[in-house]
Amino acid sequence: MMNDDMYYMNEALEEAKKAFDIKEVPIGCIIVYKDQVIGRGYNMRNTKKSTLAHAELLAIAEASEFLKDWRLEECEMYITLEPCPMCAGAIVQARIPKVIIGANNLKSGSAGSIINILGIEQFNHQVDIVKGVLEEECSDLLREFFKELRKNKTR
Amino acid sequence: MMNDDMYYMNEALEEAKKAFDIKEVPIGCIIVYKDQVIGRGYNMRNTKKSTLAHAELLAIAEASEFLKDWRLEECEMYITLEPCPMCAGAIVQARIPKVIIGANNLKSGSAGSIINILGIEQFNHQVDIVKGVLEEECSDLLREFFKELRKNKTR
Repeated sequence: MMNDDMYYMNEALEEAKKAFDIKEVPIGCIIVYKDQVIGRGYNMRNTKKSTLAHAELLAIAEASEFLKDWRLEECEMYITLEPCPMCAGAIVQARIPKVIIGANNLKSGSAGSIINILGIEQFNHQVDIVKGVLEEECSDLLREFFKELRKNKTR
Repeated sequence: MMNDDMYYMNEALEEAKKAFDIKEVPIGCIIVYKDQVIGRGYNMRNTKKSTLAHAELLAIAEASEFLKDWRLEECEMYITLEPCPMCAGAIVQARIPKVIIGANNLKSGSAGSIINILGIEQFNHQVDIVKGVLEEECSDLLREFFKELRKNKTR
């Protein structure tokens, strides 16, 4: 049986698969407001040639447009991979109260792996973190992507 | 006599004044590539109702569009105020090698005041920082803005 967190993380995984299909590192994100998905995003950094086209920023842009507010104070964010420093900073800036994370990001994870930008006391906002929801599925998709990438490179 | 850093910071200040004129917190940013300004931005958070409308992100978007690349590896960024964690993270993600800062940001400054996201060894990129260029002019503009704001509120 799936609980809510698993249900929504699965939605984020569906976004990540869209990235996979266009040969982008498969990371997906959704934002939930009162049981409704109001923001979606998947990594499009190479496609859009912009470092700002991370899944989380695209989802934040969509959610802010929906709420007509830069504050996302009653929202929850689901991400398949622990956020980088830019996205973690955006989560703090948007005052999102809770973030649910699939896989850990050992290279630039900024929700605890390298640094925890979501919990810095001196900032005017801190974020609750839940980790490990559908972790295996989220990691497997990334692993598969990088395996394919290496295979294609050595051909 | 003005050196290059002062000249470009003055350009960033001109951007900040555009924010002031539309009643946004006056913060401005420019990005320089081979002696050419290829990205400009000023804070439009309330106008655009988006937390992503910080001066730095807008300038990064413009510069990436100009270079057709998410990497801004030969660029320098001039900002009138020390960046927040989101913008500092974006600077790292975009691999900007050098950032020149006007005033310090004691509330959320992420280039040393609260935390230094630009210098975390475990990340794959670190950023050179120059501080204090036209510091007084940058601070004065912010002070003037908040003074006006308080005056209007108590009317």
